[in-house]
Amino acid sequence: MEMEVRDYELDCEQIVNNANYLHYMEHTRHKFCQAAGMPFFEMHRQGIDAVVRRVEIEYLSPLRSMEKFTSCLSLERKGPRYIFHQDIVKQNGELAASAQITAVILRDGKLTRGDELIEIFGKYL
Amino acid sequence: MEMEVRDYELDCEQIVNNANYLHYMEHTRHKFCQAAGMPFFEMHRQGIDAVVRRVEIEYLSPLRSMEKFTSCLSLERKGPRYIFHQDIVKQNGELAASAQITAVILRDGKLTRGDELIEIFGKYL
Amino acid sequence: MEMEVRDYELDCEQIVNNANYLHYMEHTRHKFCQAAGMPFFEMHRQGIDAVVRRVEIEYLSPLRSMEKFTSCLSLERKGPRYIFHQDIVKQNGELAASAQITAVILRDGKLTRGDELIEIFGKYL
Amino acid sequence: MEMEVRDYELDCEQIVNNANYLHYMEHTRHKFCQAAGMPFFEMHRQGIDAVVRRVEIEYLSPLRSMEKFTSCLSLERKGPRYIFHQDIVKQNGELAASAQITAVILRDGKLTRGDELIEIFGKYL
Repeated sequence: MEMEVRDYELDCEQIVNNANYLHYMEHTRHKFCQAAGMPFFEMHRQGIDAVVRRVEIEYLSPLRSMEKFTSCLSLERKGPRYIFHQDIVKQNGELAASAQITAVILRDGKLTRGDELIEIFGKYL
Repeated sequence: MEMEVRDYELDCEQIVNNANYLHYMEHTRHKFCQAAGMPFFEMHRQGIDAVVRRVEIEYLSPLRSMEKFTSCLSLERKGPRYIFHQDIVKQNGELAASAQITAVILRDGKLTRGDELIEIFGKYL
Repeated sequence: MEMEVRDYELDCEQIVNNANYLHYMEHTRHKFCQAAGMPFFEMHRQGIDAVVRRVEIEYLSPLRSMEKFTSCLSLERKGPRYIFHQDIVKQNGELAASAQITAVILRDGKLTRGDELIEIFGKYL
Repeated sequence: MEMEVRDYELDCEQIVNNANYLHYMEHTRHKFCQAAGMPFFEMHRQGIDAVVRRVEIEYLSPLRSMEKFTSCLSLERKGPRYIFHQDIVKQNGELAASAQITAVILRDGKLTRGDELIEIFGKYL
């Protein structure tokens, strides 16, 4: 997925603020859900919430004003947990950030074994 | 300019938070500066800052999850002030928000008559 | 209400980004609703939404890193509209920003005459 | 450090968006630098930047509208790296989030052994 830095995402060191990488990655996951036929918002309406439980992210090379980048995603399942491997890649191929984001599934607020989303996500595993 | 709502921009009423419309419009102005041959960041490095002095914005119809929209801009000059007329238009043609944003020009922190940018912006007036 | 700039609210010109003033002012309104005995979130749960219809804001003097400021609010009613007069004042008494923010009341998504909130807000008018 | 959820930080599931925890933690680090006698901004002006290299964060219990919380911080040094152990604790003592944030020191853009900040941070190690 192609994206681009917006200047309000920079901080006073003229580089993209750390928290905004999580925003880029969240938007990428929501676009992925949409492409898989189950918009995030629709899940929520059906009482199913995919909730982030853990984030591990390495910042390797900072993004700057108006820079274009590619946001990549692959999905793995480990028991009840879904693990999103997400990379932010610069146009020259350099890695800007690399993350492993663990989500669990809640149905009506209760933790499930994660099978709710297997029909939708199964083909990507 | 085509854009799309990102879910982190929604607030607890499930509609885009007011402040994010200013972000959309700022990003549109910076893309406009870039297209005009003078990236905002480059201006700043040359000691020229276009600073927002006044915003008038009407919110007409809320944007929702993942909605696509068009961000439109036209430019007017009134003495030392540049006035950006900016509309956010939904895909069905409905107006989501309409704003008039007044900017002034500072050179090395001092207010100028605004002539610095006339070469770049002149063709759009 | 006393507040303080957080560094992630600065933009690449080292001053607080325009959109964040709307965040400060929104938070002040929500604290005001809470103090008046009707948290915003509780209103929303009762089917009553106060929706911003129009913002007019003047930016007079920029806020900088870690600066402390006072966020002031007074309320006026004009027919169905509630108008919040909101100022951001620096510690030296200088005005950083001054805004007039117009809200209307929706009950279950439909515009009302605004009487829902008169019991709560009446004493502040 | 005492803080409070602002409603614009909630997302469409009515809980604080993941990225905002990084904002809370960053603000806590910057307040810590200020209290230690070296505001972050002043460091930057002297050519010293503390840059986040890695974040590991667990989300344990979501924060909700207007909730108050305490943001805790302790500091450890491992070779050239400074590791901030940061917890977000609810008023009932429950842990909302727990993170380990690794920063490295750049002088004029080049990685250093981290000794620049030992005078300031030494007493907290």
